[in-house]
Amino acid sequence: MSSVILALDIADKRRALEIVEETKEYLHAVKIGWPVVLSAGMEIVDEVAKITEVICDFKVADIPNTTRLIVEQARRHGASGIIVHGFVGHDSLRAAIDAAGDMKVYVVAEMSHPGALDFMQPHTEGIIEMAKKEGAYGLIAPATRPERLRRIRELAGSMEILAPGVGVQGGKAREAIENGADYIIVGRSIYNSENPREAAKRLYQETL
Amino acid sequence: MSSVILALDIADKRRALEIVEETKEYLHAVKIGWPVVLSAGMEIVDEVAKITEVICDFKVADIPNTTRLIVEQARRHGASGIIVHGFVGHDSLRAAIDAAGDMKVYVVAEMSHPGALDFMQPHTEGIIEMAKKEGAYGLIAPATRPERLRRIRELAGSMEILAPGVGVQGGKAREAIENGADYIIVGRSIYNSENPREAAKRLYQETL
Repeated sequence: MSSVILALDIADKRRALEIVEETKEYLHAVKIGWPVVLSAGMEIVDEVAKITEVICDFKVADIPNTTRLIVEQARRHGASGIIVHGFVGHDSLRAAIDAAGDMKVYVVAEMSHPGALDFMQPHTEGIIEMAKKEGAYGLIAPATRPERLRRIRELAGSMEILAPGVGVQGGKAREAIENGADYIIVGRSIYNSENPREAAKRLYQETL
Repeated sequence: MSSVILALDIADKRRALEIVEETKEYLHAVKIGWPVVLSAGMEIVDEVAKITEVICDFKVADIPNTTRLIVEQARRHGASGIIVHGFVGHDSLRAAIDAAGDMKVYVVAEMSHPGALDFMQPHTEGIIEMAKKEGAYGLIAPATRPERLRRIRELAGSMEILAPGVGVQGGKAREAIENGADYIIVGRSIYNSENPREAAKRLYQETL
């Protein structure tokens, strides 16, 4: 059972699918975001979903009705999970969970870029509390800030935690797991590696 | 010169383009969001952009690099403007503005659904201040809350204000303009009308 999620930030659909085929044995899932959908189309979600689980990283931050429409599309294309923002409040999250069906809804608890300190960070606890209350499946918390990850783990109860930022962004795989992440999200360190399969395997072993 | 922006929330591309053709004479621009892009593809942006100005309502809320990639795609497909969240902080907004080129960047100052009170509303002033400082072109503020719109107008200086929520959601066109909106955003009241052209014309005249 792997703890590695591949962030598939590759615009070229053929290359993206190749990387997934090469590394799938060592992956828990693949995360696909807007830039790739905008260049490759939502068909990339359908195609990767035939190989492994797909989490749509759409960071949905809209009113409830629009949220519902976006989540429904992710579901229609075979995604197993979707990432939404919590800062837009309880009714938008409710709409996401109601529209998700069997899909797992992950709420952004905290982001890792400097601007996350401007407005978001003081609300991490409130967002986690809301996510718990509404019944979200999991949280997104930064591997780049282990002490925050540990704090979020304390607050999260049994919610699953996915930790992006491992590798090029500076987060360490083993450390993230030890601080409470259930899964680490890794992009460039795998797909820009000369041997993506070996890179995925190393991360897989590191997090066993 | 019209003050009406059509929110083109129609998944059927042919019908969407028909509505734009019928109403264009009375429109300032057309707003296109994720649900439509997910079902019709980004080609809908290219096609509407041949008829009138397009604002991509992507409510981007991501780290700077992902923000840049999303904004670049909107620009590549001919959009004239893009809507981003300010909540994610100054560096994400900076990335959006830098990637936008001639495109106008609009920052969500406040949303109108109940959940917007959970975390966002206390930050309206801070977000406007940041948007001003970073040189954003405009703001999004709710036509459904005229007193908030008026307050946002006071803080916005010369920034352009687009006000969604007119029509079915309860906002009034004339009132929004009088409280400081430069443009009103209207969806269902136009495209679900028996005569979309007449509905757009009425709103156009109401806001002269």
